[in-house]
Amino acid sequence: MKSKAEGALEELGKKLVKDIEKGKNPSIEFSLRGLSNVVYDEKTRKLALGSKEATRTFFNVGHAKKFLQTLEVAKVSKNLLDVEKHASLRDVFYMAKRTIPDSSINIVDEQTETDKAIEDLELITDFSREQLHVNANKMGSVAGKVVIEDKGDTIDWSKLGSGGWSIPSNVEEIEFKKIHGKFIIYMEKAAVWERLHEDKVWDKLDCIIMSSQGQTTRGIRRLLQRMNKELKLPILVLCDGDPYGFYIYSVMKFGSISLAHMADVLAVPEVRYLGITTDDIVKYDLKKHFIKMNEKDIARLKQMADYDWFKKNKAWQRQFKMMKEFGAKVEIQALSSRGISFISDVYLPEKIKNKDWID
Amino acid sequence: MKSKAEGALEELGKKLVKDIEKGKNPSIEFSLRGLSNVVYDEKTRKLALGSKEATRTFFNVGHAKKFLQTLEVAKVSKNLLDVEKHASLRDVFYMAKRTIPDSSINIVDEQTETDKAIEDLELITDFSREQLHVNANKMGSVAGKVVIEDKGDTIDWSKLGSGGWSIPSNVEEIEFKKIHGKFIIYMEKAAVWERLHEDKVWDKLDCIIMSSQGQTTRGIRRLLQRMNKELKLPILVLCDGDPYGFYIYSVMKFGSISLAHMADVLAVPEVRYLGITTDDIVKYDLKKHFIKMNEKDIARLKQMADYDWFKKNKAWQRQFKMMKEFGAKVEIQALSSRGISFISDVYLPEKIKNKDWID
Repeated sequence: MKSKAEGALEELGKKLVKDIEKGKNPSIEFSLRGLSNVVYDEKTRKLALGSKEATRTFFNVGHAKKFLQTLEVAKVSKNLLDVEKHASLRDVFYMAKRTIPDSSINIVDEQTETDKAIEDLELITDFSREQLHVNANKMGSVAGKVVIEDKGDTIDWSKLGSGGWSIPSNVEEIEFKKIHGKFIIYMEKAAVWERLHEDKVWDKLDCIIMSSQGQTTRGIRRLLQRMNKELKLPILVLCDGDPYGFYIYSVMKFGSISLAHMADVLAVPEVRYLGITTDDIVKYDLKKHFIKMNEKDIARLKQMADYDWFKKNKAWQRQFKMMKEFGAKVEIQALSSRGISFISDVYLPEKIKNKDWID
Repeated sequence: MKSKAEGALEELGKKLVKDIEKGKNPSIEFSLRGLSNVVYDEKTRKLALGSKEATRTFFNVGHAKKFLQTLEVAKVSKNLLDVEKHASLRDVFYMAKRTIPDSSINIVDEQTETDKAIEDLELITDFSREQLHVNANKMGSVAGKVVIEDKGDTIDWSKLGSGGWSIPSNVEEIEFKKIHGKFIIYMEKAAVWERLHEDKVWDKLDCIIMSSQGQTTRGIRRLLQRMNKELKLPILVLCDGDPYGFYIYSVMKFGSISLAHMADVLAVPEVRYLGITTDDIVKYDLKKHFIKMNEKDIARLKQMADYDWFKKNKAWQRQFKMMKEFGAKVEIQALSSRGISFISDVYLPEKIKNKDWID
C-alpha cells in the first residue's frame, strides 16, 4: 500500500515535471526556517513557523545545488518508502553522495547538507522525517503496565526483566493494546531509570517510566506525544536541577527553534516539570550538594528566562531567579545521599501526591 | 542469602578489626594498578596485573584519606548488598560524600575519588563492581532467537518488535534458557543495529545482533563474555574502519589498561574483527568515501601498532600499515552507498561465508 508520505513525494515530482513541460523555471515553495520566522503560539503553547515563504528555483546560481540536493534526498526517501525500509541520517548522506557525471562536483560533501535537505523535505511535504523513513539515533528504555504491538510482536513492557524495552528510533507504527498506568515519568538519565525500575516504581505508583540519556531523542518525544494524545496520559519530567535540565523540559514541551516546523508532531505541551526544582533543593536539604554554575550555565539560564514561552510564567521566572541567586545546580542523584531508594520511597510519592510540579 | 561478595567485604572488615585489636597499624594489601604493573599474558591472550603489590595503611599521612574512602565505599557496597539494591557510580559518590564530624573535611569531593575507591575494592575483594552492586551506565539493544530469564520474567529476544531488549547495566543474574543462534554480531553503532534488525539479519543468518553506541559498556562486555563462555557462541565485531573502531575491538578482546584487573570478567579473547577492514575498503569500492585521518587518529594507530598484543600479529600489522598508507578511514555506513540493504544482503553473508575476519 502506498503511504501518504509517498503520495506527497509524487506530488512534488509531478509539480516539477509540469513546470518543465510549461517551459517554466522549476520551483519549490516552502516556509522559511530559522529564528526570524519562528513564533510562539500562545494558544497551542507550541513553537511554530510564521508566514514567511521561501522559493527555491532550479535556474538560479545560488539555488541550483540545494535544489538538486532536495530532489536527490526526495529520491532516496521515495526509494526507502517503495521498499518499506528505513535509513539513518548517515545512511541518507552516503546514499546521496555521488559525483555528477562528467564533472568533479559531488551532490553532497557533508552530512549537514543532506540533513538540511531532509528538514526542507519535511516542510515541503508536511511529513516528518520518520514518516519519510529517515530515522534519528535510537536510545532509551521503557517499563510499565503497557502492552503494545509492533512488527507483529505483542510486547508487555512490564515483563522485560531488568532491561526494559529498548525504544526504537521510529515509533510511528506501534499500536497500544492495553494500558494500566495513570501517568508517565520521563527522566533524563538512564541510571535514574534503573534505580526506579529496580524499586518497581512503575508498579507501586501505577505509572510508566521512560528515559533516554541527555537530550530527548525524536523517537522518545514522538512516543511521549502519542501516549499523551492517544492514551491521555499525563507526563512528568525528571531532570537535574540545572539550566540544561530546564532546557530539556523546554524542548519537550514547546519544541525547539531548529525544529519549529515539526512542533506539531514532536512537542508535548502537556508535559510538566516534576523536579529537581529549586524548592526541592531547599525542602530536601540538597544545598550541600551544590555544584557551582559555569558561564555556559548562567548564559543558558538568562536565555531561557527571556524566551517568549517562559517570560510571562511566574512559576518559572521564580525558578530561574532562585537558581541565579544560588549560583549553583543540583543533580537528581544528590537525592541518593538521603538513602539509595529515597527517590522512590519518599521524593516521588510525596511530590506526586502533592501535585508539586511546575507547568 | 548472603552473596560471596558480601562475604569478601566482611572478611576485609574482620581483618581490620583484628589489626586494631592487636595494636597494629590497620592495613589493606592489593595489587598495584597502572601501566607499570600491567602485563599481556600471551597464553590467555588477556591483559592482567603483574605481581607488584601495594599496601594502604591508616596511620600514614599520605594514605589516611584514601584508606577512609576505600572503607566508606566498602560500607556503601555492603549496605547495597544487604538491601539487595544496585547503585550507579554517581549514586555511590553522593552516598559517600559527607563531612567528617567536627571538621570541615569531606570524605570525598569528586566522583573520581569514589570511582577509584571502587576499582580498589574490586582488587581487594576480587569481585567486580557489578558483583558489589555498583553499576555502570545502561546502553544498547539485542535481538535474536534467545530466551532468557531475568528478575522472574521470561524474555524472548526475537519477539520484541523494532526496539529489541534494552540491555541493563548489570547482567550477572540473567539466565539463558533457549538458544538458536550460531554466533553474535556486535556492532559499534545503534543505527547499524536498526538496519540489520529491520532486515531480520538475525533470522536470515541465524545469529544474535547486539549494539551499544561508541565504546562498549561494561554491561555489554560482560554479557558477550557470558554468552561466549556459557553458550560457546563466537562473536564477530563490526566497527567503523578507523583507529577508534580497531581500539573498540582491542578493548573487547584483550581488556583495557585501566581495567586490567578486571580482564578476567570483561575481556573476551574469542572475539574476531569482521569489518570494516582495509581490505573491505578495496574490495567493496569504498575509497571514494574516505575521510581523512586527523592527528589523533594517526597517533592512536601508531599506539595500537606498538601494543604488545598486536606487535606479533601479522594480520593486524598489515591493517595498520594499509590504513596509514591510505591516510584515511571509512565508516560502516559507507556500505549504504551500494544500496540500503547491501550490508545485510551482500556484505555480511559474503564475509561470514568466507570467514573473512581478523583474529
